[in-house]
Parts: sequence; structure tokens; C-alpha cells
Amino acid sequence: MYQAEATYRVLYADIDQMGYMYYGQYAKLYEIGRVEALRKLGLSYKEVEAQGVWMPVYEVHSKYIEPAKYDDLLKITTRIKTLPKVRILFETEIHNDLGTLLHTAAVTLVFIRSSDKKLQLCPAIMTDKLLPFFDEI
Amino acid sequence: MYQAEATYRVLYADIDQMGYMYYGQYAKLYEIGRVEALRKLGLSYKEVEAQGVWMPVYEVHSKYIEPAKYDDLLKITTRIKTLPKVRILFETEIHNDLGTLLHTAAVTLVFIRSSDKKLQLCPAIMTDKLLPFFDEI
Amino acid sequence: MYQAEATYRVLYADIDQMGYMYYGQYAKLYEIGRVEALRKLGLSYKEVEAQGVWMPVYEVHSKYIEPAKYDDLLKITTRIKTLPKVRILFETEIHNDLGTLLHTAAVTLVFIRSSDKKLQLCPAIMTDKLLPFFDEI
Amino acid sequence: MYQAEATYRVLYADIDQMGYMYYGQYAKLYEIGRVEALRKLGLSYKEVEAQGVWMPVYEVHSKYIEPAKYDDLLKITTRIKTLPKVRILFETEIHNDLGTLLHTAAVTLVFIRSSDKKLQLCPAIMTDKLLPFFDEI
Repeated sequence: MYQAEATYRVLYADIDQMGYMYYGQYAKLYEIGRVEALRKLGLSYKEVEAQGVWMPVYEVHSKYIEPAKYDDLLKITTRIKTLPKVRILFETEIHNDLGTLLHTAAVTLVFIRSSDKKLQLCPAIMTDKLLPFFDEI
Repeated sequence: MYQAEATYRVLYADIDQMGYMYYGQYAKLYEIGRVEALRKLGLSYKEVEAQGVWMPVYEVHSKYIEPAKYDDLLKITTRIKTLPKVRILFETEIHNDLGTLLHTAAVTLVFIRSSDKKLQLCPAIMTDKLLPFFDEI
Repeated sequence: MYQAEATYRVLYADIDQMGYMYYGQYAKLYEIGRVEALRKLGLSYKEVEAQGVWMPVYEVHSKYIEPAKYDDLLKITTRIKTLPKVRILFETEIHNDLGTLLHTAAVTLVFIRSSDKKLQLCPAIMTDKLLPFFDEI
Repeated sequence: MYQAEATYRVLYADIDQMGYMYYGQYAKLYEIGRVEALRKLGLSYKEVEAQGVWMPVYEVHSKYIEPAKYDDLLKITTRIKTLPKVRILFETEIHNDLGTLLHTAAVTLVFIRSSDKKLQLCPAIMTDKLLPFFDEI
């Protein structure tokens, strides 16, 4: 398993009139979590794209347990539990600064070649970085 | 079953550098779909809130089938298939102007009293409007 | 002068915890206003882009007079007061459904060639559509 | 004069199909800049609000010099050049990691009492923190 953490300070831009983070803003947090997870692995998504690979989101499953509120400093924990093949699954947990679990999400992305939009396997530059974290191979 | 439709024109604001609607923007479309579905039923969410009922989102499950693109005129179809009790489930389908199914989502909201944030049942003003569409009672 | 109108229903997504539309959401309204103004002129921005012309925003000046609130049905009035040459200025006024002026903005865009990012003149397809509204030529 | 810096990593969420940060996303950067500027002064906007003072935005003037791009690590410099009375002016400069100036903005906010929405003076808790940076009093 590979795991990494990132933080996010909740903005006024994110909050609705209930005083809760708008439910649509969480997708941005998943993005921050997975991009920072890749960066800590020594891999920028920008580089992946530069190699002609796009990673569009295919499926998202989100659970809203407690609301995030204005100025909360959130901890975003992102896990990759299985070595990606045709898909990559990022599991995200979001806690506030009191350690309360606010939110969980499972985000599945696929790999496509930007030139012709065809599905492809997880590129070697990503698999190579992830391999040391998995026994299964 | 109750069903209603709304439309949405994809903005530059919505699109990422793949030329696809950013995956986090779809939550806004579900909101448009369910608010317009309620409005066509003779019910504004603003009035529901004014009665002291909030409807925070509890769970979302989204599938991204084909990308929405800039300037697409999307059709958002929203269905309520079971009469809400402690939760309300809105099922959303999004098609482009060619009739291609781009996206599906299942969005579950709960009802809470704004005064004390306690869970409650679907308010009568909503159940009364929905009842004629359901045989099951 | 050329003038056109569009409408926008304020979403929960747009509102902050003061119950006001977040100040950063207005840019999207200016976009809706100018894209619909061009469309009513018989011109889609998508077509302009397809001809290799991009129109990035160069300058924005916004005044927040009264807050837009949840579920307000806003009227966006967009005016082009001078025939564009190297820049195009869209002047926007936003009223709520009571006719109260909420907001004004002046948005200046430039024209660049997408191939080399060089500044260019307003393309002929746009000038031709606008000419009938201006005496000055 | 009081000045502070913050950083922001450009997300996929922020970028449009030109590969540029969408012009409406900059408002969020100004917010990050001014909130972190206040925080470094020992003042959270959350506390200001808790004291019954809201600070809605009154006027924004933005200049887009060069585009911010995906994954850029932006430096947001925020300056308060005059001691606030009925208004507070935040001047923002945004540079990319190469030191190129991308963007400038002047954002004016007012102070209102949340109870009755009446304009008021800059609250003492803010003026007290700012005074040491200004000779003028």
C-alpha cells in the first residue's frame, strides 16, 4: 500500500450558507490529495501528461460524514491499495484539525493516450515508482 | 416515480485543459437538476430552508461515461424513485445535445433541523407534493 | 452599441456563509453574459476558437453594490459600446428579479492567435457581425 | 505598510482549455492572500466574524499579465498600504515560481455589522494589529 498526506485550509469560497463546505468542493480536495501523493512518490501529473497520458476520472463514491467548516485545516489522506493496471483507485479520507473523520471517497481514474483517446495501461513511469510499495508482483 | 428535466450550457469556467468538464463541476449539475425538479413540483428549496429544514448531502456516487465539452447544451434528468423518509435519493442522468449519455449519479441527502442539526423525517410540504407520483402508500 | 441579456439562477454552490454570492462567482456570470451576447449575434465563441483565435481576459473591474442571494433569478445585461480593435470591452450589469442593480463590471479581453500566442486584431467574423450596431465606421 | 506572502499550487480544477488558469479563479487567490496576511498578523477572519463583523468585497480591479498554468507554484504577495477606516484595500501581486509577475489586483472590502448589515469602521482588533506598521497616526 502507498499512502500520503496533504493539507487544505477551507476558504470562504468553499462554504455555503449552512456554513458547511459545499459538497461539490470535495472533488478538488481529492485532486490535491492524489497529486501530492504522486509528487511525494517523485512523479508529477504534469510530467505524466507531457508523456501523452491523460488520467480522466471514471468513477467517484463520496460519503459526507461531518461537515468541513470555514478555516478548518483539513488533513487529506490518500491511499493506493492495489497496483494499478487499467485503472487506478485512490482512497481518500479527510479529517479536521481535531482528528474527526469528516469525509471518505473512492476515486477511480483510467489511463488514456492523449493522441487518440484510447484506453491504455498504467504507464511504466508510474508503475515503477509504485512497485516498491506492493508485495504482490 | 417523479422525474424532471433541466438544461445547462457548459462554460469555459467548467472545462479543464483536456477540454473536458472538470469532474468536480458535475455536483453543480446535480444541484441544478434537483432544485429544478423540486421547483417543477411547486416547491422551492429556499422555502424548505425557510421552514427550518436543511438538506445536506450524505452520499454521492458518480460515473463519468463520456466527457462533457465546452458549449455543450446538457440535458439533466433527475428522478425520485422512492418516496423519501429519512433520506431522499435523486438519480441523475446527463446527456449532451446529441442524446449521448455522458454521466450518471446517485445523490442521497438527509433532512436536518437547522436549529439543532438533528436528523428528521422528510417534511410534510415535500411528501405531500411527491405522494401523487407514488402508488406505494 | 450592441446589447444582450441573459439570466442566471443563483445556486447553493455560489453562496457563502453570509448568504451572499461569493465574490469570485461573478466572473462566471460575466462569461455567461458575453457568450450569450455573442450567440445572439450569431456567433459562438466555440467557432471563434475553432478559427484559431483565443480571447483571454486582460482586465476586470467589478463593483459589488448589493449582494446576490440564493435562488435569485439574475438578469445579466452585457453591452459592447465601441467596435473592438485590439481589445474588446464588455460592460456588464446584473440585476435581481426585483430590478435592483446588484453589480457592475467592465471586462476587457484581447485576441491572440492560438498557434503562436501573438496578439492580433478582432477577427473579421466578429467585426462583421458587430458593424451594423455601430455608426462610427 | 504591511505585507505578507502565501503560496498556491495551481490545480487541474483551476485550468481552462487554453491551459490557462480560468480568470474567475483568481478571486480565490486574493482571498488566500488576505486571509493569510491577517493570520500572520495574529488575526483570523473567523474571529473577526465571531465578533459580529462581516467584510464583504466592495470593489475588485484585476490585471491579467501572463497566464498561470497547471501545477505552477504561485507566490501571492498581499499589501495593506494605508490604515483601514471605513474600507480596507488589499493590493495583491501574483508571481510564478520563475519570478514572473502574472497578475495584480486591488481588492476593497467594507466592514458591516452582521446583526443589521450597517456599515461600520474597521474593528479595533484589526486596527490595533495594523497600527505598528503605519507611521501615519
